[in-house]
Amino acid sequence: MRTLISGGIVVTASGSQPADVLVDGERIHAVVEPGTDPASWQADRVIDATDRYVIPGGIDGHTHMEMPFGGTFSVDDFASGTRAAAWGGTTTIVDFAVQKKGTSLRETLDTWHGKADGKCAIDYGFHMIVSDVNEQTLKEMDALGGEGISSFKLFMAYPGVFYATDGEILQAMQHASDSGALIMMHAENGIAIDVLVGQALSRGHTDPRYHGITRPPDLEGEATSRAIKLAGVAGAPLYIVHLSCDEALTAVAMARTEGRRVFAETCPQYLFLTDDAMAGPGFEGAKYVCSPPLRPSWHLPKLWNGLRTDALSVVSTDHCPFCFNEEKQLGQGDFAKIPNGIPGVEHRVDLVYQGVVAGEISLARWVEVLSTTPARMFGLYPKKGEIAAGSDADIVIYDPRARQTLSARTHHMAVDYSAYEGREITGRVQTVLSRGRVILDDGRYDGAEGHGQFLSRSTCQLLG
Amino acid sequence: MRTLISGGIVVTASGSQPADVLVDGERIHAVVEPGTDPASWQADRVIDATDRYVIPGGIDGHTHMEMPFGGTFSVDDFASGTRAAAWGGTTTIVDFAVQKKGTSLRETLDTWHGKADGKCAIDYGFHMIVSDVNEQTLKEMDALGGEGISSFKLFMAYPGVFYATDGEILQAMQHASDSGALIMMHAENGIAIDVLVGQALSRGHTDPRYHGITRPPDLEGEATSRAIKLAGVAGAPLYIVHLSCDEALTAVAMARTEGRRVFAETCPQYLFLTDDAMAGPGFEGAKYVCSPPLRPSWHLPKLWNGLRTDALSVVSTDHCPFCFNEEKQLGQGDFAKIPNGIPGVEHRVDLVYQGVVAGEISLARWVEVLSTTPARMFGLYPKKGEIAAGSDADIVIYDPRARQTLSARTHHMAVDYSAYEGREITGRVQTVLSRGRVILDDGRYDGAEGHGQFLSRSTCQLLG
Amino acid sequence: MRTLISGGIVVTASGSQPADVLVDGERIHAVVEPGTDPASWQADRVIDATDRYVIPGGIDGHTHMEMPFGGTFSVDDFASGTRAAAWGGTTTIVDFAVQKKGTSLRETLDTWHGKADGKCAIDYGFHMIVSDVNEQTLKEMDALGGEGISSFKLFMAYPGVFYATDGEILQAMQHASDSGALIMMHAENGIAIDVLVGQALSRGHTDPRYHGITRPPDLEGEATSRAIKLAGVAGAPLYIVHLSCDEALTAVAMARTEGRRVFAETCPQYLFLTDDAMAGPGFEGAKYVCSPPLRPSWHLPKLWNGLRTDALSVVSTDHCPFCFNEEKQLGQGDFAKIPNGIPGVEHRVDLVYQGVVAGEISLARWVEVLSTTPARMFGLYPKKGEIAAGSDADIVIYDPRARQTLSARTHHMAVDYSAYEGREITGRVQTVLSRGRVILDDGRYDGAEGHGQFLSRSTCQLLG
Amino acid sequence: MRTLISGGIVVTASGSQPADVLVDGERIHAVVEPGTDPASWQADRVIDATDRYVIPGGIDGHTHMEMPFGGTFSVDDFASGTRAAAWGGTTTIVDFAVQKKGTSLRETLDTWHGKADGKCAIDYGFHMIVSDVNEQTLKEMDALGGEGISSFKLFMAYPGVFYATDGEILQAMQHASDSGALIMMHAENGIAIDVLVGQALSRGHTDPRYHGITRPPDLEGEATSRAIKLAGVAGAPLYIVHLSCDEALTAVAMARTEGRRVFAETCPQYLFLTDDAMAGPGFEGAKYVCSPPLRPSWHLPKLWNGLRTDALSVVSTDHCPFCFNEEKQLGQGDFAKIPNGIPGVEHRVDLVYQGVVAGEISLARWVEVLSTTPARMFGLYPKKGEIAAGSDADIVIYDPRARQTLSARTHHMAVDYSAYEGREITGRVQTVLSRGRVILDDGRYDGAEGHGQFLSRSTCQLLG
Repeated sequence: MRTLISGGIVVTASGSQPADVLVDGERIHAVVEPGTDPASWQADRVIDATDRYVIPGGIDGHTHMEMPFGGTFSVDDFASGTRAAAWGGTTTIVDFAVQKKGTSLRETLDTWHGKADGKCAIDYGFHMIVSDVNEQTLKEMDALGGEGISSFKLFMAYPGVFYATDGEILQAMQHASDSGALIMMHAENGIAIDVLVGQALSRGHTDPRYHGITRPPDLEGEATSRAIKLAGVAGAPLYIVHLSCDEALTAVAMARTEGRRVFAETCPQYLFLTDDAMAGPGFEGAKYVCSPPLRPSWHLPKLWNGLRTDALSVVSTDHCPFCFNEEKQLGQGDFAKIPNGIPGVEHRVDLVYQGVVAGEISLARWVEVLSTTPARMFGLYPKKGEIAAGSDADIVIYDPRARQTLSARTHHMAVDYSAYEGREITGRVQTVLSRGRVILDDGRYDGAEGHGQFLSRSTCQLLG
Repeated sequence: MRTLISGGIVVTASGSQPADVLVDGERIHAVVEPGTDPASWQADRVIDATDRYVIPGGIDGHTHMEMPFGGTFSVDDFASGTRAAAWGGTTTIVDFAVQKKGTSLRETLDTWHGKADGKCAIDYGFHMIVSDVNEQTLKEMDALGGEGISSFKLFMAYPGVFYATDGEILQAMQHASDSGALIMMHAENGIAIDVLVGQALSRGHTDPRYHGITRPPDLEGEATSRAIKLAGVAGAPLYIVHLSCDEALTAVAMARTEGRRVFAETCPQYLFLTDDAMAGPGFEGAKYVCSPPLRPSWHLPKLWNGLRTDALSVVSTDHCPFCFNEEKQLGQGDFAKIPNGIPGVEHRVDLVYQGVVAGEISLARWVEVLSTTPARMFGLYPKKGEIAAGSDADIVIYDPRARQTLSARTHHMAVDYSAYEGREITGRVQTVLSRGRVILDDGRYDGAEGHGQFLSRSTCQLLG
Repeated sequence: MRTLISGGIVVTASGSQPADVLVDGERIHAVVEPGTDPASWQADRVIDATDRYVIPGGIDGHTHMEMPFGGTFSVDDFASGTRAAAWGGTTTIVDFAVQKKGTSLRETLDTWHGKADGKCAIDYGFHMIVSDVNEQTLKEMDALGGEGISSFKLFMAYPGVFYATDGEILQAMQHASDSGALIMMHAENGIAIDVLVGQALSRGHTDPRYHGITRPPDLEGEATSRAIKLAGVAGAPLYIVHLSCDEALTAVAMARTEGRRVFAETCPQYLFLTDDAMAGPGFEGAKYVCSPPLRPSWHLPKLWNGLRTDALSVVSTDHCPFCFNEEKQLGQGDFAKIPNGIPGVEHRVDLVYQGVVAGEISLARWVEVLSTTPARMFGLYPKKGEIAAGSDADIVIYDPRARQTLSARTHHMAVDYSAYEGREITGRVQTVLSRGRVILDDGRYDGAEGHGQFLSRSTCQLLG
Repeated sequence: MRTLISGGIVVTASGSQPADVLVDGERIHAVVEPGTDPASWQADRVIDATDRYVIPGGIDGHTHMEMPFGGTFSVDDFASGTRAAAWGGTTTIVDFAVQKKGTSLRETLDTWHGKADGKCAIDYGFHMIVSDVNEQTLKEMDALGGEGISSFKLFMAYPGVFYATDGEILQAMQHASDSGALIMMHAENGIAIDVLVGQALSRGHTDPRYHGITRPPDLEGEATSRAIKLAGVAGAPLYIVHLSCDEALTAVAMARTEGRRVFAETCPQYLFLTDDAMAGPGFEGAKYVCSPPLRPSWHLPKLWNGLRTDALSVVSTDHCPFCFNEEKQLGQGDFAKIPNGIPGVEHRVDLVYQGVVAGEISLARWVEVLSTTPARMFGLYPKKGEIAAGSDADIVIYDPRARQTLSARTHHMAVDYSAYEGREITGRVQTVLSRGRVILDDGRYDGAEGHGQFLSRSTCQLLG
């Protein structure tokens, strides 16, 4: 099966120029000057990309499909979640396998393979959440590298569930320093936060907006600094997930300036939404409850600046959808019981493109933070993250002038609300190829469960 | 004329993978999965690049060929200088046209076209040094954009020659803010330096090493900070040339963290040499006299770190050769009369590669700071700076395992000494194509004066 | 003549406690536990200070009496100005002798002695403004130390009038480094400012508020940083006068943290007034034109914080009064012609006390920034700046509960407006002693021209 | 009983001048100009202080007398420890009452009153170490203010013994924010340190020097930053005890610059000793084991600079003596079992005076960091910390020219070694008065157990 993507403007992390892309089977065979004769290439299919951007498919390095939470699960499974991702121009996700305390990482990985196998519309990999740092799991961390798991997430929050002590974190980092694995950190001081949460509840402050008030930026900044220092002691690189505020950003930027190997991602919700959302009428605020929480508006331009300067290297979604009329209702009368998470896997490419429209970032940077850097960060390059001969034909054809309105009525995630309901935006995913297969074209979805394959990832390619 | 570069590893600013490169005439026609049949491509010539890196030709954004200096000239003219560049894997230079006080920018540009026209082995562009900031030249700055001159250099040093006052700098920046031109700054406080120089000479401190002592890092850091603040007032982007020390680097890094549009380059001499060189026996130190001066060794790891974090975006050479046995002798008995400059255009690609060997930077970053970013910074992308369909076939085939020894006996610059004499290094330029023409291959030079063309540059492509 | 100040609370830079103060002639003879029997002390006079603070008389280290300006003079001469100071609880001023270009420092000092001799109500010293840095004046700087002139002010603004180049500044600092003199700096980049001023005027922006707009904080911050770096090169301590904005404050705070010997003063106008004042109706804004200009309100809490942490060590007034209906009118239609200056010598003690009332600073810090530190900074301690046996009996008895309203109708400065017109404040100077003589008591002034003596000052006592 | 201290130079936190000091009973009655006639004052005793400094007695805010440790006690009890303090010019200590887990603060205070009552040669107060933060102790913290306990120490190290979680710390800070109490923090990340300690021991790294290696500066800097952020969340002031390294100092300096109410003390051992001491021959290093550990030499000038700029406000000793031939031997073969602590209460005044001799700090600053600021910090001013009428007659007469050699053979602490053995220094305590009683004079000790009284302290006087 040969495809010719003709007449488009290929955008990479460095810039753009017109070129044709020749796809042979699952891979890009060549990138060629415009004007390719379909016959000479014996194309089975020609896609006209005139006036469109041809970009590497998005890589969302932070999703939670079918994630167990308090007896229930996040409402997108690997089937619906990866289909929604495809609709939004994302062709790879790296999801989190979640160790349950008392179980092995080995079992955990098997469980997650079981969830994803045969279900995914696009390729996928796994990070591993380590909930139980001990002799056994430290050894397993070293071993799992051979199975394509090269990144491990720890939590400085959620005591009793995911929380790791500073000593456990240090040990995990030391192992990572030896193996080349990447430690990912949820950096909020959960011990202090839980005191504030308890105090708020005891005062009858139970509305969703207290979720934000009890998780102040200082406690994210603090934990971020601490993680950086611990990584320095261990000699390990560090990746801060879902950075939301200036305090944490400053810690990362200063550490990088000092020469420390620290990276950070932010998410669309922190670039576009503010804490006002949590103070909406009635229980509406629950839709916007995630951790770290949405921040006051003055943080947003700081984050955009961080995205320009590489203090923030990646935009992921932390996609973790719960229905407003179902799971989110668990937190009626107690904000601490609201399942944390915002749906987003479908809108990352479009939302970050609004930064291009607004002049916040360049076209090249858009591709870099959504695809090329995630590929390099998580050991997938050049198979993923690039429009280049030899790379997988994970390709998005993007219409930069189309207009659309985001809404739960039209999105494809299995969740009953949109955090961006009614937002009008510019730009739209027109066509998506996953390993050479056209899975979306002009509003027609043609993906298949099971088409997506597990990606065995190498170690981080941004070091040294 | 069709060329096939076969079996190599293509390295871009994002990473590397095996690919064949098809060159048709002056441009890259396609980048293709390995295994291309030369016949199918009707190749006139096949270059075997097995086990070699295939990289975009180097772009040296800071050279001074045949630069007038005190009645004489820097000893490489555009013929010898661009030939030496080609030997070293550089396929584009951006040289400085130097306004003489009292002349127009128009005349200056004509003069420099006269110097370069028909002489260059590789393509070239011009920045413009503005020595005389006034109503007339400010208008000319705006006009020269139309002739491909999109960057203008000002000096905070050398009163009476190049020095511009803060008021003149501010006005030039205001014009640049409107036109999109890039202001490049030589950031040393020359007014204060000249006091120190006069004091040193009056005390009989005439040896070359006093060149360094009278230009302390604080006065480069100061000027860098000042330029950044003036650019902020003017709302203009800023490019700091030949940054040499931690004080200046910190100023740049902090400004970037604050969101200011500031860029900086460093040079190989600041990454590899120290102020000890100026204190060599006899008059040897004169070989190493350049401005800013070489710095104490503790600055070097800071600069390498800056190169990793993008506080330093570019490595240029500031190539400005004077013969030790001729021009440099003018400074016998008075270090202030030593012509400032170090030869380097031939060794930039090789020297910075030593940073890859040492683990300081990645392969991808090597290509980025030497070619891709200079192309974007100076408005040459994607014509230059990329291995991609449609780009100029400016290509270097690099042998990463060869060993060589740098020496004046073997280099091709028209200067009688090497600042790196006897240094053994790993890696070597094997083959160089300039717009499709093989001008160097395995130690045989086949370039031609006049092959190189003037490049009309657009504005900086790293903004917004 | 023996005086007993009985029953008050003595406040020093460290704290406060009840004590009686015994004054014998011009000096404090003893500080004694409360309850002194006037007879045992053979007191000629007893002042009841019950419920009052007994503090060392204020020292205003920055005044401009009878300062020549464009053919006219600031409107307070040494008689009216020092009388107003006394009314406000200030018992020492250090005024600026202003070198006219082309004259010697010797002549300048003689001229200023002539102005002040026999006129002052309180003791006074001189700093020297050096307008003409050259071989001759550098030598004179060294010599004037012997005549009690230990501090020299330079300007980075006002080219053609006071402006010194960075080279001249460096040389003056080198001399100061040797002699122990203190360099005081007006830190604004006047070269860049003059460009902005010219541009504003050419656009018809002639109103007073453009005075502020053309002197942006970045250009004060820049000059402050530059002065600090130059002082570092010279190895000299540095005192920044009238610091007005966060940019400059941050530069000072960082320099101090790095261990540099840098001090700064601010003025009441920067602590209490904002740039809104310059945008008043009609020409009202001219009343508030001073340099650096008043700043946006967000700078004010930063300055208060600097005052707490010692980044700001001193509050002086920069008292430089011009009548609104006379001299200020010179700037009608051209803000650049408005004489720069705000009257303030009378209100410094009262205004800064409002910071105590508001909880911004402690009682002890009030005394420290108004009296003790200026005494130490300018070489007057322990003769001045302290309530202690042996110190001059320059004493203020302060009523912390009185209320008063500031107004031109009631003030004693020879100027026709108040920058604080109508402001109601808490606290009031009740009694003032100058070298043992009661010159103000409960609204009755009993000072005398010529009572005040010239103070020969030693070098800064805050170093080492 | 009336005493006249005649002819000395009184030194305060602001400066010095000659004055006589009249002591009546326990208090200073007056400070008078020199030349007092003993008869007029009816002096029972005259102390000639000619050419001597007369300073307020030292206040050591951090001692551990008879501190329980692993079944034994620090070897100075309140009798021997306060006597040694007196020998060294310290007239007040604030010791730590140490809550044992499971006991109340009430009991703890009673126990410590029992230890000190009738034993002390000089006045004393207590801070309280809170080992068990819970509902009960939080209430007790509030209540103890009424008994003169206004400062509470928490530990971020020593899990299982003193360690408080971040949540407990936050709660204690919230209580302090309400009550005005001061939280004192041992800021080392003990959780991470214990991992490093365990790893070192498991590798057979048991020598004393591993004590330092397993407590890296980054983990003190981290904990300091964290404590500052937690205090910010709670709105409470913070006092960092025994700050030892640049990382922590920078955190404090930055916080102060931002306007946070953070204070820090350092100790003589961090100003004069380095980590080399822990690597001494045999088991010698054990003498120098304290926490935080001694640091590499480059930290020392940073600490001196911090002392000049007030980032460090206080020098205390952390006096915690264990005999080398007894208790310290517990750590043979396991550095983690070496009792932590260095004896020092006797030498603080003398050692810090060496900073005056070396030009690091001024005479006034010497008095400030040793006496005046500790008095204000811990709510003892003006009773203590000042030479002023009404203050306690805690006075030291200091001979600035005497020479002495520190040695265990001559010191008065009940410990068998000196951390400064053989060090020759300039300056010596000549005479010491405690509440008017001469307890040391020219090498004759005349103090008495039980003379010292408990000091009920108010809240910190440096706030607001």
